[in-house]
Amino acid sequence: MSGEDAPAQQQNAEEQKQQPQETKTLDESPKTESKPDPPPASASTEAAAATPAPAAEKAPEEDTFSYRALVLTGYGGYDKVKLQVKKGKPTLKSGEVMVRVKTCGLNFADLMARQGLYERLPSPPVTPGMECSGIIEALGEDVTDRKVGDKVLVLNRSGMWQELVVVPAVHTFLMPEGMSFEDAAALPVNYITAYLMLFDFGNLRPNQSVLVHMAAGGVGIAATQLCKTVNDVTVFGTASASKHEIISEGGVTHPIDYRTRDYVEEIRKINPKGLDIVLDPLGGSDTHKGYNLLKPMGKLISYGAANMLAGQKKNLFAVAKTWYQQFSVHTLSLIQGNRSVCGFHLGYLDSETELIAQAMSVILDLYQQGKIKPRIDSTYHLEQIGDAMRRMQERSNIGKIILTTEPMKEEEKKEEVKKDEEKKKDDKKKDDKKKDDKKKEEAKKDEKKKEEPKKEDKKAEEKKEEVKKEEN
Amino acid sequence: MSGEDAPAQQQNAEEQKQQPQETKTLDESPKTESKPDPPPASASTEAAAATPAPAAEKAPEEDTFSYRALVLTGYGGYDKVKLQVKKGKPTLKSGEVMVRVKTCGLNFADLMARQGLYERLPSPPVTPGMECSGIIEALGEDVTDRKVGDKVLVLNRSGMWQELVVVPAVHTFLMPEGMSFEDAAALPVNYITAYLMLFDFGNLRPNQSVLVHMAAGGVGIAATQLCKTVNDVTVFGTASASKHEIISEGGVTHPIDYRTRDYVEEIRKINPKGLDIVLDPLGGSDTHKGYNLLKPMGKLISYGAANMLAGQKKNLFAVAKTWYQQFSVHTLSLIQGNRSVCGFHLGYLDSETELIAQAMSVILDLYQQGKIKPRIDSTYHLEQIGDAMRRMQERSNIGKIILTTEPMKEEEKKEEVKKDEEKKKDDKKKDDKKKDDKKKEEAKKDEKKKEEPKKEDKKAEEKKEEVKKEEN
Repeated sequence: MSGEDAPAQQQNAEEQKQQPQETKTLDESPKTESKPDPPPASASTEAAAATPAPAAEKAPEEDTFSYRALVLTGYGGYDKVKLQVKKGKPTLKSGEVMVRVKTCGLNFADLMARQGLYERLPSPPVTPGMECSGIIEALGEDVTDRKVGDKVLVLNRSGMWQELVVVPAVHTFLMPEGMSFEDAAALPVNYITAYLMLFDFGNLRPNQSVLVHMAAGGVGIAATQLCKTVNDVTVFGTASASKHEIISEGGVTHPIDYRTRDYVEEIRKINPKGLDIVLDPLGGSDTHKGYNLLKPMGKLISYGAANMLAGQKKNLFAVAKTWYQQFSVHTLSLIQGNRSVCGFHLGYLDSETELIAQAMSVILDLYQQGKIKPRIDSTYHLEQIGDAMRRMQERSNIGKIILTTEPMKEEEKKEEVKKDEEKKKDDKKKDDKKKDDKKKEEAKKDEKKKEEPKKEDKKAEEKKEEVKKEEN
Repeated sequence: MSGEDAPAQQQNAEEQKQQPQETKTLDESPKTESKPDPPPASASTEAAAATPAPAAEKAPEEDTFSYRALVLTGYGGYDKVKLQVKKGKPTLKSGEVMVRVKTCGLNFADLMARQGLYERLPSPPVTPGMECSGIIEALGEDVTDRKVGDKVLVLNRSGMWQELVVVPAVHTFLMPEGMSFEDAAALPVNYITAYLMLFDFGNLRPNQSVLVHMAAGGVGIAATQLCKTVNDVTVFGTASASKHEIISEGGVTHPIDYRTRDYVEEIRKINPKGLDIVLDPLGGSDTHKGYNLLKPMGKLISYGAANMLAGQKKNLFAVAKTWYQQFSVHTLSLIQGNRSVCGFHLGYLDSETELIAQAMSVILDLYQQGKIKPRIDSTYHLEQIGDAMRRMQERSNIGKIILTTEPMKEEEKKEEVKKDEEKKKDDKKKDDKKKDDKKKEEAKKDEKKKEEPKKEDKKAEEKKEEVKKEEN
């Protein structure tokens, strides 16, 4: 609960890294590797961190204990996240619980983290993942409000993409009756993010208007559903045209295809006075556009820099550009416009246990009342983490991407190897197409430069970027 | 109601300036001057602005009609606001009402305006004043929800410091039974400002903590009272020690003497994690301090630059310094801190009629329930506007300073002349003391420089400024 938890966790994570554990190879999986690796991320309390369990105390049965875990081995492309086997039963500190994981959620921060763009993930080798659901398997001392067998959803700074996790009991929440493990893993990050943005910073009220970017993404769908819990809220949602039907059914009042339309113009046509709330996960020039769309007493809530993600590996140009175009604002501009600019990231809120618990409680209530329901886009095995990340990064998903810890069947695995080869070919094709497109666009640009004033050029460049974003 | 009202008003004000009206001298008042002057500020609707009433239509009785008005004749010291007589009955446009003014409210923006630091006041000669209370004397066409004799409070962009005002009916609000004209003129600006900051941007909830600067000022007292309408809110209030008893009685949990204490340190001692809401009317370095005091999900609401006001006339050094130290923030900092920075100024919200009406309705309800009650610091005659402004600028007031349109009695006026001479002497003394203090402080500073590292020097300088602020 205290702001001082974070440094303690960091320190703890580092301590663990200094004690490499035994691992064994799992021959059955084509993707499984065996490497010395840290045990499951454990966000300990300060008191526990002060008294680490000595390695010498291990019981013999713990040596034969093993579980599979995804491990980020270094920053880069999809192949940097590898399936490994961790050995040795993790010890439980006071206040902690051990959870046998059923499903995990994939988030944008995980993609940023793989490229080294998310500082809240400890440096590799490390198990990523901020959320999962599963069943409590063991309790540490002083845990009174959980019991073995409880079905829980878990929110943690990192380390959730593995079969077994050890976390403070306060980071777990009881799953309501009838909730699937998929829904449970899909709730925490997206819905707490959307909830705190809309109702704490945004102060959303009836008759207001909200812009939701990436409206078919996890936060986008959560935000749309939460907007619909308030009377007469107008939701503008950007997404590619193929997703419009689904997001409209989900509650988006005005879907906008940002690839073929200027979303600012479209919104101004419908709401000439502007918007009450803009949720901005993109960063860069889109933050400026969002700010200019605010009406008096409007709130811009920035919660990411998805514009930095252009391609599988870190794209220095996209990072530098997003950084360079980063929005900054003077109080005088805010005063004269009666505007608010907020920043949100759940990853920096992990010490605010009480705030998170309150939000989670409301969200679980809304779920039970049937007012919200995560849309599961697809479920992947841990072995397929690369495909799962690719789907998200290429914005092919509509809703949440889930990982299941259930092992793949043998025949599925063989299929997987074939697909893998095809995908590599496909990636090459995409790269070639990108190069081709770039050439074409540059040729176009040259032509335009001859014809049109500079201002028009800028617009074309912006559109080009938006097309790129969709393709990557 | 539309955002396009503002330019129309501006245009209208300019039109009016091009038609100077007759004025006559009022010998009785030592301060009264007679000059060609614009009629009362009329914030017309667009429709009305499109069809200005031709001057030729004036009835003979209108020529003998006159009323007293305060007029800002140019930017500068207290003497730039002069009492003049305007002649000619103002014409009413559709949707407007004429109000016989009883009392007017004084606001910080009026002090800024006199020094040329508030762009929402049309340029001189112009009648300042954003709020008043009085009795409706005439109705324009299409006004159905007001009648002659209604007691109203009025909120307008400017032009309220005179005996007679013409405003759109939507800028008037019916006074509840039993409300005094003083209370009515004290409510609009301070309470709407405090209300929208705390409950729209701030989203104040039980158990939260709020920093209220200038806690003995009009907005400060309104904010404290509104905080107390929410359970268990902790209010930190800065004010000089002599005002602590009164602001404590008014609801401030922790009064802090900013002249002798570092308010940041004092707050950290009590709330190590920081604050949920900081209301910042000061600007400059205080905005930075406020931002750093925010806890996660905390909101900084900047609503002025009182630090720019140092002395009776524009202090270029203070203006430049406040401007130079103006707070600006990047979205990345906001994201990593989960913070919000908002800007508020009622003067830029005048076209948001519906929003204002909603806020005013809640405020009048709270007043009737006895949950809020303006604290009237003092009441001045129009003739004493200089004294009234001086009292506010020197931060001598505890609560609201009110102007009454009731003329001064003869014997009071004679007293006034004597006092005036004394005040001029006093001002000279203050100036001399300031120069003296400066010399002394510089001598001290030189000594300190020899003894202490640079960091300490900075602290001393800050303290010095705070002392100055109090003295001015």
